[in-house]
Amino acid sequence: MLRKHIVLAADLAGTVVFAIEGASAAIRAGLDLLGVLVLSFLVALGGGIIRDLLIGATPPSAIRDWRYPVLAFVAGLVTFLIHTQIEAVPALLLTTLDAVGLALFAVAGAEKALDFKINPFIATLMGAITGCGGGVMRDMLLVRIPVVLVADIYASAALLGAAVVVIGRRVGCPPAMAAVLGFVVCFALRVAAVRFGWQLPRIG
Amino acid sequence: MLRKHIVLAADLAGTVVFAIEGASAAIRAGLDLLGVLVLSFLVALGGGIIRDLLIGATPPSAIRDWRYPVLAFVAGLVTFLIHTQIEAVPALLLTTLDAVGLALFAVAGAEKALDFKINPFIATLMGAITGCGGGVMRDMLLVRIPVVLVADIYASAALLGAAVVVIGRRVGCPPAMAAVLGFVVCFALRVAAVRFGWQLPRIG
Amino acid sequence: MLRKHIVLAADLAGTVVFAIEGASAAIRAGLDLLGVLVLSFLVALGGGIIRDLLIGATPPSAIRDWRYPVLAFVAGLVTFLIHTQIEAVPALLLTTLDAVGLALFAVAGAEKALDFKINPFIATLMGAITGCGGGVMRDMLLVRIPVVLVADIYASAALLGAAVVVIGRRVGCPPAMAAVLGFVVCFALRVAAVRFGWQLPRIG
Repeated sequence: MLRKHIVLAADLAGTVVFAIEGASAAIRAGLDLLGVLVLSFLVALGGGIIRDLLIGATPPSAIRDWRYPVLAFVAGLVTFLIHTQIEAVPALLLTTLDAVGLALFAVAGAEKALDFKINPFIATLMGAITGCGGGVMRDMLLVRIPVVLVADIYASAALLGAAVVVIGRRVGCPPAMAAVLGFVVCFALRVAAVRFGWQLPRIG
Repeated sequence: MLRKHIVLAADLAGTVVFAIEGASAAIRAGLDLLGVLVLSFLVALGGGIIRDLLIGATPPSAIRDWRYPVLAFVAGLVTFLIHTQIEAVPALLLTTLDAVGLALFAVAGAEKALDFKINPFIATLMGAITGCGGGVMRDMLLVRIPVVLVADIYASAALLGAAVVVIGRRVGCPPAMAAVLGFVVCFALRVAAVRFGWQLPRIG
Repeated sequence: MLRKHIVLAADLAGTVVFAIEGASAAIRAGLDLLGVLVLSFLVALGGGIIRDLLIGATPPSAIRDWRYPVLAFVAGLVTFLIHTQIEAVPALLLTTLDAVGLALFAVAGAEKALDFKINPFIATLMGAITGCGGGVMRDMLLVRIPVVLVADIYASAALLGAAVVVIGRRVGCPPAMAAVLGFVVCFALRVAAVRFGWQLPRIG
């Protein structure tokens, strides 16, 4: 019961962080208020929606549970209203919060896929999709190549964190410990990659 | 029974209007005949397909009922064949027909979501997605930022019309009256917004 | 039983061809290793995933059966490692292999839709979506208008091949013969169209 509350709280926290980021990207791209709210919704919930459609968990939780979209819209609206203050937030804090959101979503995404009896290898992919899908949707709507495909250790951090959860559960870790380990690995790799400028190999 | 026929007729009318618009956009963008037919299909039926996938109504009605795609393809083919005449249609008539299609789809989308026991708040979103999803797909395939995110009172009109349907049903309106009210509100707001150049707020 | 093995082998062969093409496109567009793997996955399996979501076959086979994504990722990784050799492959061989993949997917896609009791007309569309959906996703992620909408006899070949399968089954052909006929028609039309530079009509 306690675990369920913690999972829900983590999920809602990740939703708020990603919704603020979506709204900020929309404001920078010159979208109107509706566009800002749509991007808040999609960046926060798009990854989870794709995951749920793929694993057959329909309707997706973002559609079944009104608290998720309401939270995303409120976060987007607040960002719209106080965008000057939000732009003044130091980049380091934003990156750190984003890494928290990524790690939360990667862990939660892998866990939900396992709950739906999805193969462990694919459950790892589902964790990464949950973490990165919203950002991919944002880039596609703003007509740019998804940054996650081009640069940075971002999806890779989500994949590794999700893999830790999946492997941890396979080798008999208590679920809570597997989740915490996965979170820490994803978060640490992402923050270290930003700090040290790590990149994946690329040709040419 | 009569109501069912009216709903079907409205749905098919909206499909034709949106298919013609999709075909026209494809022709203007220089797509070939296949591209024209694909855009006819997606602009007409894409919003409903997204809604059906999200609310768990699979296969979507556009896949289950062959009349929808056939109608969209025929409308697209006719547009391709007589595109000179269609381009001569006055802009005001096109805008009005588009507002009719938007209002029909917003109302029908919200109603279908309610039929599937979707939460009223989210059913309102589903109405807007039904009305706007096809246009978003068109813009994404043509590699431009979806116009609905950037300008005009368009999705907002769909949201308001869908909200009227949902609230009307909650407060005990007969379904037919709620539908008509929602249609009128969406259509009137959209037409007024075009007439008076209303826009949503935007930053910068 | 033999037929089942042949179908699986054909499906896996198509997956490898399309994954190599997705990886090559990603390398040419300057994506990093993760982007290369994502495009391998999506070009190979994206069309089938869309088809499965639309016909209600969830989770899609690419999610249910780990062999498909593993194969796509391995093909993508190998392409990344030996991309110089792969770029040296003559264009004619690539086009021919691509036509094989297209024909395999169009036939398999139509057959699966029929298995799920989808209307024959729509099963034909599903064959084309299976063959072309991955390429459309590639183009959308790389921010260009899907080439299949603009030029070439490509989706049309997939449509025709799928139609042959569907009609063949309706008129009582043994399934294996309908599949072979559909494959041959799609492959031959695609190769002839490339050879003779056939195009669909277009306006302006």
